[in-house]
Amino acid sequence: MDNNKVLDEFVRNYYAQMAEGVYGTPISLDPEDTALILIDVQTCVTEEYFVEGFKAMGMDVEPLMPALDQLGENIGETLANIERVLNKCREKGIRPIHIKIESLLPDAADTGRLHKDAGMLYPPGTPGTDFCKEAMPLEGELVLKKTCSGSVVGTPIDRILRNLHIDKLIVVGFYTDQCVSTAIRDFRDLGYQVDMIEDAMNAMSKERHDKALQAIQNIYAGSETTEELLTRLEELK
Amino acid sequence: MDNNKVLDEFVRNYYAQMAEGVYGTPISLDPEDTALILIDVQTCVTEEYFVEGFKAMGMDVEPLMPALDQLGENIGETLANIERVLNKCREKGIRPIHIKIESLLPDAADTGRLHKDAGMLYPPGTPGTDFCKEAMPLEGELVLKKTCSGSVVGTPIDRILRNLHIDKLIVVGFYTDQCVSTAIRDFRDLGYQVDMIEDAMNAMSKERHDKALQAIQNIYAGSETTEELLTRLEELK
Amino acid sequence: MDNNKVLDEFVRNYYAQMAEGVYGTPISLDPEDTALILIDVQTCVTEEYFVEGFKAMGMDVEPLMPALDQLGENIGETLANIERVLNKCREKGIRPIHIKIESLLPDAADTGRLHKDAGMLYPPGTPGTDFCKEAMPLEGELVLKKTCSGSVVGTPIDRILRNLHIDKLIVVGFYTDQCVSTAIRDFRDLGYQVDMIEDAMNAMSKERHDKALQAIQNIYAGSETTEELLTRLEELK
Amino acid sequence: MDNNKVLDEFVRNYYAQMAEGVYGTPISLDPEDTALILIDVQTCVTEEYFVEGFKAMGMDVEPLMPALDQLGENIGETLANIERVLNKCREKGIRPIHIKIESLLPDAADTGRLHKDAGMLYPPGTPGTDFCKEAMPLEGELVLKKTCSGSVVGTPIDRILRNLHIDKLIVVGFYTDQCVSTAIRDFRDLGYQVDMIEDAMNAMSKERHDKALQAIQNIYAGSETTEELLTRLEELK
Repeated sequence: MDNNKVLDEFVRNYYAQMAEGVYGTPISLDPEDTALILIDVQTCVTEEYFVEGFKAMGMDVEPLMPALDQLGENIGETLANIERVLNKCREKGIRPIHIKIESLLPDAADTGRLHKDAGMLYPPGTPGTDFCKEAMPLEGELVLKKTCSGSVVGTPIDRILRNLHIDKLIVVGFYTDQCVSTAIRDFRDLGYQVDMIEDAMNAMSKERHDKALQAIQNIYAGSETTEELLTRLEELK
Repeated sequence: MDNNKVLDEFVRNYYAQMAEGVYGTPISLDPEDTALILIDVQTCVTEEYFVEGFKAMGMDVEPLMPALDQLGENIGETLANIERVLNKCREKGIRPIHIKIESLLPDAADTGRLHKDAGMLYPPGTPGTDFCKEAMPLEGELVLKKTCSGSVVGTPIDRILRNLHIDKLIVVGFYTDQCVSTAIRDFRDLGYQVDMIEDAMNAMSKERHDKALQAIQNIYAGSETTEELLTRLEELK
Repeated sequence: MDNNKVLDEFVRNYYAQMAEGVYGTPISLDPEDTALILIDVQTCVTEEYFVEGFKAMGMDVEPLMPALDQLGENIGETLANIERVLNKCREKGIRPIHIKIESLLPDAADTGRLHKDAGMLYPPGTPGTDFCKEAMPLEGELVLKKTCSGSVVGTPIDRILRNLHIDKLIVVGFYTDQCVSTAIRDFRDLGYQVDMIEDAMNAMSKERHDKALQAIQNIYAGSETTEELLTRLEELK
Repeated sequence: MDNNKVLDEFVRNYYAQMAEGVYGTPISLDPEDTALILIDVQTCVTEEYFVEGFKAMGMDVEPLMPALDQLGENIGETLANIERVLNKCREKGIRPIHIKIESLLPDAADTGRLHKDAGMLYPPGTPGTDFCKEAMPLEGELVLKKTCSGSVVGTPIDRILRNLHIDKLIVVGFYTDQCVSTAIRDFRDLGYQVDMIEDAMNAMSKERHDKALQAIQNIYAGSETTEELLTRLEELK
């Protein structure tokens, strides 16, 4: 048991050293071959969505409000960071690509099995499918829809990125432990250089976000804060 | 801060309830359409490999031995479970598919960027590429090689499973937080039903294994112990 | 030279015999697992499109009119057949999936290299991107866009068909020698059963259509006429 | 009928002009990013294979010999060209990638549906799976196996080419109308520049080869003769 603590410490050092070699220098930022990937920045992650959802199910929401208010606060901070990243990327000519969970068919029959089994059906127009106001796509920006967790398995993004000659990705969005983790793993496996913005992504709880970070941060992708990225973007050109 | 604990508790309940509906009943086991996927059960996860590697780098291994012995003990227990699962699956006619990290080319030029950047080059015959003795493929069993983290991105397994009419997967192997997590996420997104054997997989440390489980266990895949699976397999036919 | 004629005859018999065994019985038609795939049934295949295009390029169209009128006649017959197939499939509950060439971005930057090199840019709203009136999608029918030849490489259709549990495909559209041939080859390689309706597809010339048929008809897919299919559909239920 | 001849002529001119703009200049040849793709250069395309096969089926081969001898002659010429291309590519440092039809499993259970339906089962060691002596892979050259028509759907070649930073392909092999056509279409759709060597590929009959060329030559890929390619390769460096 004690030795497991020794091992944990050893492994932390082991990965930290490995990461330093690979992710010590953040990816270069070049509008020509870099895109901003926004994953599931849609209203189904907001406090309002949960509150309305629970009410619709006839639940007494009052006892849940302390938890949901904390969720709202956490997600709100993340959305503010996403908005800053998005605006600065647009300003500097880095193309945003918006990915969201939404089916193509009105009856959601095209939903993937993972989501279908969990009852996660999001036909167009359903509550939760709208983009958050902090990350509303502009006319002419790419919007891709998926009905599963991963962006690579669930959308033609790999092919689109190739056609656009993009091979560097800045990733933000929801949830760190689910769709974001899946996307980052697959992107990196396909050969893209990936930079994740650690405070412009979040999970349903801080606990889940923090634990998920350990598996991917500086292992599958370089990681920096919104502030660090904005500083680097500001210096562009 | 306090409210974040309330939120954590709320979220744990939330996912537990969701999971109960989807993963409360484990996948049925039918040799006709079920395969056992063994991920990276190769010697590069063993204590011996790390000890030899550190020695080859001229490091003094002595101070690391408590950590490495614990690693050896943890991995050893997992390998014993993998062996039991593999043998029982063979006995019951469930096809094992062995996936390992190894390049096709002698100079490893075909290695994916994630592994190349990290210096993880595994040409055929390199230390670490042999299967562990507990999970040695038999003549005529499928062996697939990859040079990245994910089994779906890195091998033609999706197509092979389709040709074999398999849509249920039992997953074991290494590491829980890396190649195993990536594979389970992608398999599930592609529509496969996945059953992960929680004590027949492991990470470099217990800490990493435990944290990684939270993101996938009963969310991307049903989860049971070796003992539970063996009991169910025993009842087959 | 003479012996090449003997060989041609021999090979025709060889493939005819092989085809009889595989495609002698047409695929069964079951709305549960069958879809109608309409490929590029869009106005860029019509006589009007070519006439307008040549005029826009400042060419004297008059000398080309005999050829273009013949093209219009050929395509018109095919469109009439497509319309009959589409209507009967809808009536019988076989889901139509409409695929067309159109970029996602207004500047067509997401166009695949094959089309980009050839100057084939089709941003939304461009002449040629509208569906032909004979095959206008209804509200709630699937529409997929591509910027290359193949439907499998260029759209997420494989994943969508899996989610819909469809594994039998009826294929119609344009052009037999290009996008239709590519799609049929890839669909079949992925394991779908494919039935091509030989007079509900066409190429720019009868010569090209006929020659292309030889490579795929009853080799990559079973083949029947509109009339034969309609008779079989009529008998459904 | 007459007007169809006018249309055929018009269409030939139309594609010839389009092709001139795209394929008028052959792809540049750079060992850094160019590979030679050899498709199905295996003994199942040889006269011997057919003769033995027919005998094994108890057929009287004698009446078929004029056709089979012509087949042997045609294929022999093609194999000689393939050998010259392969040797010159090796000499100039252009990496050959050998693709062949062969299952992974001894019982060929992993065979794709297209081949399974046609009874085309090629387990390892089966007659027909050996590479032709003119195109025997050297130690350390990439060999990929497939159980379907297409190289892209049937092998992980797209990922391997990306890892190798290759985006230009020289394609040779068998059969022009089947596996070669499918591969060229998919490669080009994925964004690779493709150069097909028109007399280093062939079909079962000259008729089939010629007709298939029309659909792909200078439409999906640039096309040159063995002699033209060898001259260009000779000038390299």
